[in-house]
Amino acid sequence: MTTEPIVLTEALATFDTLWSPRIVARVNAYDVRIAKVAGEHVWHAHDHTDEFFLVLDGELRIALREPAGERTVRLTKGAVFTVPRGVEHRPYAPEGAAILMVEPSGTPTVGDRHDAVPGHVDVTTGPRL
Amino acid sequence: MTTEPIVLTEALATFDTLWSPRIVARVNAYDVRIAKVAGEHVWHAHDHTDEFFLVLDGELRIALREPAGERTVRLTKGAVFTVPRGVEHRPYAPEGAAILMVEPSGTPTVGDRHDAVPGHVDVTTGPRL
Repeated sequence: MTTEPIVLTEALATFDTLWSPRIVARVNAYDVRIAKVAGEHVWHAHDHTDEFFLVLDGELRIALREPAGERTVRLTKGAVFTVPRGVEHRPYAPEGAAILMVEPSGTPTVGDRHDAVPGHVDVTTGPRL
Repeated sequence: MTTEPIVLTEALATFDTLWSPRIVARVNAYDVRIAKVAGEHVWHAHDHTDEFFLVLDGELRIALREPAGERTVRLTKGAVFTVPRGVEHRPYAPEGAAILMVEPSGTPTVGDRHDAVPGHVDVTTGPRL
């Protein structure tokens, strides 16, 4: 990895693929990834890890299937939220968004359990920028 | 912790103390902390963990004592940088800044080794917001 700071807006400008995270930093065995998103991701769950989201631009919604039922959280620009491990969730962004995520290195974008993955969703553990 | 998203600008508006991180989210055994900073922190090192920085507002500089010598990285708004474990560093922000950090829960703000801690620097592992 680079040993110089990375400006996230500049990093986001280097790619256009949606739902295809790029690693911008590491913290011990965790990756910090950024992604451009629009439309719907897929219902999935990470059985062994929480997943942290920060919205850099636009608005992200995350549908959650919790024991009490299904609900949706709405993250405006500059909002943070952690999806707890094991919780089925489906991120989506009707108007598009740029997001930052923190999760263990090697965590697949579609989790350990998921619905059929549509063609526009990249199944990846996040290549480096 | 709350199970609703937290808007970072609103979270930052709830406190004024400088160099005194507040935990806004957890990711497994890691904390996501935010802080308002201005002036100088203290030279310190974390022997067992990297430390991730994202600048939310303003500009942060981090002086680093690396094997090749001392240098300073400058993080403008929206820039990210990870200080590797073991590297002595001193964050400072001549004009003030708001920052987000990711590190293992329980990591003290002044690391495992540090210079004398000035009164304006809070020695904490980050209380919840």
